Amino acid sequence: MNAPAVEVTEPANRRAGGRLGRKVLRGIPMGSFPTLVRKIPVYEMVPDEAVELIHQESLSILEEVGCEFRDDEAIALWRAAGADVSDTRVRIDRALLMELVSKVPSEFTLNARNPQRSVRVGGNNSIFVPMYGAPYVRDLDNNRRYGTLADLQNFHKLSYMAPALHSSSSVICEPMEIAVPKRHLHIIHSALKHSDKPFMGIVTSKERAEDTMAMAGIVFGEDYVRDNPVLVSITNCNSPLVWDATMLDAMKVYARHNQPLILAPFALCGASTSASAVGAVAQVNAEALAGVAFTQLLRPGSPQLYGQFMVTVDMKTGAPMGGTPEAAQMMYLMGALARKYRLPWRTSGFHVGSKLNDAQAGYESNMLMHAAILSGANYIWHSAGWLEAGLTCGYSKFATDCEQLVGWYKYAGGLPFDDFKEAMAAIREVGPQGHFLGTQHTLEHFESAFFMPSIMDFNSFEQWKVEGAKDHDTRGREKARNMLADYEEPKLDEGIAEGLTDFIARREEALPNSVS
Amino acid sequence: MNAPAVEVTEPANRRAGGRLGRKVLRGIPMGSFPTLVRKIPVYEMVPDEAVELIHQESLSILEEVGCEFRDDEAIALWRAAGADVSDTRVRIDRALLMELVSKVPSEFTLNARNPQRSVRVGGNNSIFVPMYGAPYVRDLDNNRRYGTLADLQNFHKLSYMAPALHSSSSVICEPMEIAVPKRHLHIIHSALKHSDKPFMGIVTSKERAEDTMAMAGIVFGEDYVRDNPVLVSITNCNSPLVWDATMLDAMKVYARHNQPLILAPFALCGASTSASAVGAVAQVNAEALAGVAFTQLLRPGSPQLYGQFMVTVDMKTGAPMGGTPEAAQMMYLMGALARKYRLPWRTSGFHVGSKLNDAQAGYESNMLMHAAILSGANYIWHSAGWLEAGLTCGYSKFATDCEQLVGWYKYAGGLPFDDFKEAMAAIREVGPQGHFLGTQHTLEHFESAFFMPSIMDFNSFEQWKVEGAKDHDTRGREKARNMLADYEEPKLDEGIAEGLTDFIARREEALPNSVS
Repeated sequence: MNAPAVEVTEPANRRAGGRLGRKVLRGIPMGSFPTLVRKIPVYEMVPDEAVELIHQESLSILEEVGCEFRDDEAIALWRAAGADVSDTRVRIDRALLMELVSKVPSEFTLNARNPQRSVRVGGNNSIFVPMYGAPYVRDLDNNRRYGTLADLQNFHKLSYMAPALHSSSSVICEPMEIAVPKRHLHIIHSALKHSDKPFMGIVTSKERAEDTMAMAGIVFGEDYVRDNPVLVSITNCNSPLVWDATMLDAMKVYARHNQPLILAPFALCGASTSASAVGAVAQVNAEALAGVAFTQLLRPGSPQLYGQFMVTVDMKTGAPMGGTPEAAQMMYLMGALARKYRLPWRTSGFHVGSKLNDAQAGYESNMLMHAAILSGANYIWHSAGWLEAGLTCGYSKFATDCEQLVGWYKYAGGLPFDDFKEAMAAIREVGPQGHFLGTQHTLEHFESAFFMPSIMDFNSFEQWKVEGAKDHDTRGREKARNMLADYEEPKLDEGIAEGLTDFIARREEALPNSVS
Repeated sequence: MNAPAVEVTEPANRRAGGRLGRKVLRGIPMGSFPTLVRKIPVYEMVPDEAVELIHQESLSILEEVGCEFRDDEAIALWRAAGADVSDTRVRIDRALLMELVSKVPSEFTLNARNPQRSVRVGGNNSIFVPMYGAPYVRDLDNNRRYGTLADLQNFHKLSYMAPALHSSSSVICEPMEIAVPKRHLHIIHSALKHSDKPFMGIVTSKERAEDTMAMAGIVFGEDYVRDNPVLVSITNCNSPLVWDATMLDAMKVYARHNQPLILAPFALCGASTSASAVGAVAQVNAEALAGVAFTQLLRPGSPQLYGQFMVTVDMKTGAPMGGTPEAAQMMYLMGALARKYRLPWRTSGFHVGSKLNDAQAGYESNMLMHAAILSGANYIWHSAGWLEAGLTCGYSKFATDCEQLVGWYKYAGGLPFDDFKEAMAAIREVGPQGHFLGTQHTLEHFESAFFMPSIMDFNSFEQWKVEGAKDHDTRGREKARNMLADYEEPKLDEGIAEGLTDFIARREEALPNSVS
């Protein structure tokens, strides 16, 4: 339990500084938050011996059963490293595995095109990242339909505007009207153009990963992106125990550029894992570690993210669920394992099974974010927009989540003790049966003391009725619409903007209009 | 961090027992759950030195400022005990205060009329209790209107049926059509008749508290209820620092019957406390300790519940908020203080500011319940039905919360390691790229491995649409309606039932029809 020390500043000294910093933490600021530095301890749900037990079982699985790596180059690398290779099956002994894993830095800086938006990943640092990959949107009129480039641009704009989001992700929703072979160009272009925060890479083929790096090079400089992390990319293990060629191709491109990958099994617990939460964690841990180790064969010392996406499966219908108790419990275990390995780690925040931004979405979202924060996750993905097991990105859900993140940012910032003496002086001043609204302490602190959301409604019933008796979902859509109306683009340098459009035009020439 | 040891049972031994127990914990059972025994550690958000600091400040407040006790008998008792009394102001030195507080037992049994529904309060035990005090209901047709006796009876029926609720509360909603002076008789009658779980007392006057005890005596035996806890009653301190005559009257009746009271300041943080979360906790702690200490002047060794109800206030409108980050943070502090004093403690679970059972309600509810569970609360009140800062009890919210509680019961039951070896054997059996649906382990565990809610919907979008594209709120109302259709009354012994109706008739004769 790494509880931080309490700092109680005497009133006289406190006035000297820190007021501005506290305002940012306490109120809802207009700008963008820096990296969240968690000031609260992590929650260890199980004792160390349980973590060790899972760890040992994971290593045994990799030694005895091994993991598939379906790519010739990957197999050659593993053989050269001394693993026990048979066809595409790689059995990795625990000494080799842990030696490779230990090469991963425990923290790294993820650089944004606006240096003020660069963030730190690992250790006590956490960042919030919006969702990824939805073919559908639930739009500003509450219709569910295919996503478009205009939607994607809107979500990049919202990501830029949301103070507690630290990334613009990339393919928040799919721009379905654009041909698949060319789509990645427009996704990355939109992310780079509409926001100045870090973003995410494309992983669906080697060529698309290379295009992503080329576009990043136009913005950051080709040399710069050979060594400096500017984007994060997801590679999912096919549970159980398969790293396929597509994922390995993406890994090769990005890891060799020193760009961090998320090595994250996508586990449907009960179907692609056993029907045991602890068993699922042991398996996913083995899969993630195998992926992490492989990246260190590609580029030793490259920054990586250990991670997981684990949902339980409705054992009657096979449907994935979202914010269930077991999903939270498994997150705590993964966090403990990540700390054991000193790896930066990724989990998911607000991901739900709900079709709508309704009560179910709220219960599910908060179940997972609470666990993400208390388990010390560093890269908290799917923290805005996610509905329907990821099939849909909702405008209302997106705006709602952005507001909730401000609360979580405050929550993880811990309890401010700096004005404690003043607060106690206020009690002495007020005495029994008084009220505090006129005290000096209240006047100084009322704007910043407590989380003040705007989509959530705490007005009287009568006031709420006069304002249209709107449910949260409706208010969320209105908020998204209002935010978009206020958007101002963080312009790229003109030469860079042209460089990007030229590159896209050239690549569109070269690429086919259909996959076949 | 009191993390429990992990028990990994070898498959051969495991089969010998515990299967039934695990089924109850894992699946959604038909019956009633026993007391929740938390098997996960508590979360200490701040280090011990911070808890000590708050503790010391609270004691200083009670010594220097003191607390109002607005009742002659209370003042006489305090004077006799050696407190510094001036008019109604009582200044309590820390030695006296802590000596009185130390007399409270750290655990007690709360007895139900059906002994199988008796529960244990304190230590690692938690119970879930439905809400209390709503003048309005949001009904089965989604209309907001005054509560009636029929509504109250319905909520008592639902409390009886919900497996994870451990109490029937009492005045879940107000039966507004019944004259105030007679209302309490019908509230207690309904709780005792429609459910066999523990319940709650009436505190609005000495006479009504005595009627409550008389009715409890008819059911449990007059002698029995002189010493054995069968109900819990709420007494709120008027923050800041006032215990008023009505509350003190109720305390006198119940504590002298050895019936536990909740000593809980109702704090609107920022208005009735300073605009500081830590300052608010220090004040509320002082208020609660003063109340707890007073009960021990009435009956030393009587069981009591330390507690709090703390919501932050929207500093622009004065409106109380519900599930905010600060509310959760303050809960963790109160839990740490309760453990320091070894006092059973009460907090609130699913209480929200939302008018509807919508996304806001979900976010707020889960924010607080997560904190209630991880802060080790023993009496988790307002765990079903609460909307609109307590003004309204919603049928949909009630049913939703009952389902969510099953998940929280599982969550707090911890991660089962008993089938871990079997789960790992399943991974070896399946190997890479297999699936687990046909393994022996899955066949044995698929029904009970994961939380399987029914109001939450995880079907495909298409299936959900075919079923009417209902939001969670609508599904919650349907669930409540269906539950009520299945209700079967746990009949009272005929003589007892008659005794109650005779008592009510007699008291109704004697009582006026208006408060005048």
